[in-house]
Amino acid sequence: MGRAALRPLSAQALASAVGARLIGDANAVIHGVASLESATPSELSFLSDARYRVRAESSLAGFLLVREEFVEMGGAIKLVHASPHLAFAKALDVLFPAAPTIPGVSPRAAVHESATVVGAEIRAHASIGANSVVGAGSLIHSNAVIGDNVRIGIDCVIHPGVSIYEGCIIGDRCIIHSGTVIGADGFGFQPTASGWAKVQQVGAVVIGNDVEIGSNTSIDRGAIEDTVIGNGVKIDNLVQIAHNCRIGDHTAIAGCAGMAGSTIVGARCMIGGASMLTGHISICDDAVISGGTLVSQSVTDPGRITGVFPSLPHREWMKMAATLRRSIKK
Amino acid sequence: MGRAALRPLSAQALASAVGARLIGDANAVIHGVASLESATPSELSFLSDARYRVRAESSLAGFLLVREEFVEMGGAIKLVHASPHLAFAKALDVLFPAAPTIPGVSPRAAVHESATVVGAEIRAHASIGANSVVGAGSLIHSNAVIGDNVRIGIDCVIHPGVSIYEGCIIGDRCIIHSGTVIGADGFGFQPTASGWAKVQQVGAVVIGNDVEIGSNTSIDRGAIEDTVIGNGVKIDNLVQIAHNCRIGDHTAIAGCAGMAGSTIVGARCMIGGASMLTGHISICDDAVISGGTLVSQSVTDPGRITGVFPSLPHREWMKMAATLRRSIKK
Amino acid sequence: MGRAALRPLSAQALASAVGARLIGDANAVIHGVASLESATPSELSFLSDARYRVRAESSLAGFLLVREEFVEMGGAIKLVHASPHLAFAKALDVLFPAAPTIPGVSPRAAVHESATVVGAEIRAHASIGANSVVGAGSLIHSNAVIGDNVRIGIDCVIHPGVSIYEGCIIGDRCIIHSGTVIGADGFGFQPTASGWAKVQQVGAVVIGNDVEIGSNTSIDRGAIEDTVIGNGVKIDNLVQIAHNCRIGDHTAIAGCAGMAGSTIVGARCMIGGASMLTGHISICDDAVISGGTLVSQSVTDPGRITGVFPSLPHREWMKMAATLRRSIKK
Repeated sequence: MGRAALRPLSAQALASAVGARLIGDANAVIHGVASLESATPSELSFLSDARYRVRAESSLAGFLLVREEFVEMGGAIKLVHASPHLAFAKALDVLFPAAPTIPGVSPRAAVHESATVVGAEIRAHASIGANSVVGAGSLIHSNAVIGDNVRIGIDCVIHPGVSIYEGCIIGDRCIIHSGTVIGADGFGFQPTASGWAKVQQVGAVVIGNDVEIGSNTSIDRGAIEDTVIGNGVKIDNLVQIAHNCRIGDHTAIAGCAGMAGSTIVGARCMIGGASMLTGHISICDDAVISGGTLVSQSVTDPGRITGVFPSLPHREWMKMAATLRRSIKK
Repeated sequence: MGRAALRPLSAQALASAVGARLIGDANAVIHGVASLESATPSELSFLSDARYRVRAESSLAGFLLVREEFVEMGGAIKLVHASPHLAFAKALDVLFPAAPTIPGVSPRAAVHESATVVGAEIRAHASIGANSVVGAGSLIHSNAVIGDNVRIGIDCVIHPGVSIYEGCIIGDRCIIHSGTVIGADGFGFQPTASGWAKVQQVGAVVIGNDVEIGSNTSIDRGAIEDTVIGNGVKIDNLVQIAHNCRIGDHTAIAGCAGMAGSTIVGARCMIGGASMLTGHISICDDAVISGGTLVSQSVTDPGRITGVFPSLPHREWMKMAATLRRSIKK
Repeated sequence: MGRAALRPLSAQALASAVGARLIGDANAVIHGVASLESATPSELSFLSDARYRVRAESSLAGFLLVREEFVEMGGAIKLVHASPHLAFAKALDVLFPAAPTIPGVSPRAAVHESATVVGAEIRAHASIGANSVVGAGSLIHSNAVIGDNVRIGIDCVIHPGVSIYEGCIIGDRCIIHSGTVIGADGFGFQPTASGWAKVQQVGAVVIGNDVEIGSNTSIDRGAIEDTVIGNGVKIDNLVQIAHNCRIGDHTAIAGCAGMAGSTIVGARCMIGGASMLTGHISICDDAVISGGTLVSQSVTDPGRITGVFPSLPHREWMKMAATLRRSIKK
């Protein structure tokens, strides 16, 4: 979906493209990429960490991205770069160029007559609601549903089956993976004598530029004001972001994490997988939350917060649990 | 999707609608709602808690819902009500009236000839299976898939991309948000010499009236009998409800919570976010499960159950973990 | 969806089909299945555990699958089998035969002209991408989106709303439930001075034969090499499997579990609900991870790993937490 197959390239062309110095046959052609263990003589791999030197030495890779200190390592054609990992990432961009968006609306798509879609590609069984705007270069995959009054910026990719509810705003160059839901109602109810009364959720979700959101993630619309995702934020799969959360620029949130309503997360934070933030707290800039940790109080100092004991063989753990319990009963 | 933009209203009209006493210009028009911090002179806000009095005093809000004790607070036009929070919720219903359902089936929808759809709205790329019934006033959004032999009551809203499998029953006035799956097979397998053998899941899911379910939630069909969700139950996003669970009336389940098979939850419980209930246990009426808590035994007394230690700075936590481990090894 | 209603059968026919010895009226007809508590005289139930003997004795079930030791129990017609539970599972297969797939492509589906679809059923609003192959006997439900260059084996069922991204491979006889996403990009980014740089994810997902995956689960494509799910693996709902994980044959993963990137799980493991495996670790064959446990180190011995304290009434728990905290501060 959207990514072309690998485009073979000469060692010289790739070295130039990623800013590496070439040692070896400039005309040899790279036909693939692989890990050190499985690479073949026509494939490129990389050595970024001296710990993997042994693997690199026994690798069959025909092309290796390495730091200067490893240029003497025999065998492969070398592409020398100060940061092989970064250079490899760049090599992937060059070898697997994104298929260009082909502007046009599939006859099988349902685009409201009042929507503005110029220079974007809308695939089969996608819907674009009334008064919505999809920016140039954006690709709306099959079966994505864009509600009314939504704005999607330029060069976005909205994958199959994404739902974006009424009034939400997506910045430029965002990628939203399948199954993710943006702008469903927040979980807002009030107790009454006859049960829970729904509180209309009249805010929206506003997402900045260069945001990527994984699959099956839920970001609820705000209750009164908006839920806000800053620029450059990266969110993994199956993440829950409740109404009125605000996520600062360049924060990364790993899979299965969640945060309850009105939680404020600063910039450049790293929120570990399966961690949970309770509502109405603030996490300062540059905080790191360990995986699986439940945070129930605001975090005011950058640094790492943890709340999970290392697991143990079941019998040992249960003994520990019982002893802990007893020691406290004394 | 389905909600109209704000309908401007005079202070008097709104005060009447929510049962508040008006102090100030009856003809002034409310053009929006906002929090105390961001409200403008044409917008309505509310003060429900004396702790926020300072914010209310510095608020630019032109209209304020307040309790009797705050009527002297200068500035805004006041709408006085014993419960400003409830009155504000009612004001949202009045100011943001739901767009009426427009009965009719999109020519782009796939409705089986044996299905009964009278007075409901079926949008593009939705499917309604054989012998299924959709009640009057219900709205089936784009790309929702309703299987065979499903019954959906009146005045429901089924959001884009929801899947409801064969034979499931949804009551009246239910709201199901995007990406939620009702009635997929329970996780039922039996070990055999050649691996896991699937146990057909022949129960269904039966959902009562006035139930709201968030996005990307999974409620599995029963193995033999049904999975049952009571009246007035509210379920948040990314919640897992396994086969044969039974949830009592008016229970609320927060995001990322889960329960394994055959768990029985009473009425009016509050199940915290990211909490997990193991299978084949019972939770009594009016129990409260703290967020992040794993409950592995039945709960027989109403009250709150907890199982998570407060998180700490990483170094402190690891010291605590090591000390705990050592103290037990003695 | 895809399952026919119950097909009534005589006691003799069912006994023969499941290999049970019949005691009672061979011509009596079974019209349903139910639990011991709710079964009626025309329904079949089973007693697999002596603990439920009392329930069986008071059951109104007209037909009972039992072990030899319970043949004397009065009332119902008996089907005697060494393993009533397994025999009951087989009875479900016989009584609820799967509706046959009806090969053909809905005129409302979007199948690329270069795709190969022979002997498969493609329903309304499904999409099949360029060069993709769907095997004979497979059923692609409404609104499933199959990307380019995907291979799906024979006799698979892909439920509504599933997304399978470019280049992924699904074996034979797989079942994938609604909302599940196969092959979205792994969470791969590199820090740069201007924020996170995306690392193209150029691996795919390769799924073996006889795999079942629940609803709203996410399995990411590999970064360079593939994410691999072995034969006979069973995965529940809302499970997160990150890029480059490898799951061994016949492992079962319960709901809400997750694993970070490059985690290797052995064969025949049982991964408990809501457990989390951190990245780059290995779990040996036949390991059992308790529900809710966070595993941050490799597991080398088969057996059970645990990491969750039993929950308590809130006050007791908080007292325990405070005492633990104090004891360590000394």
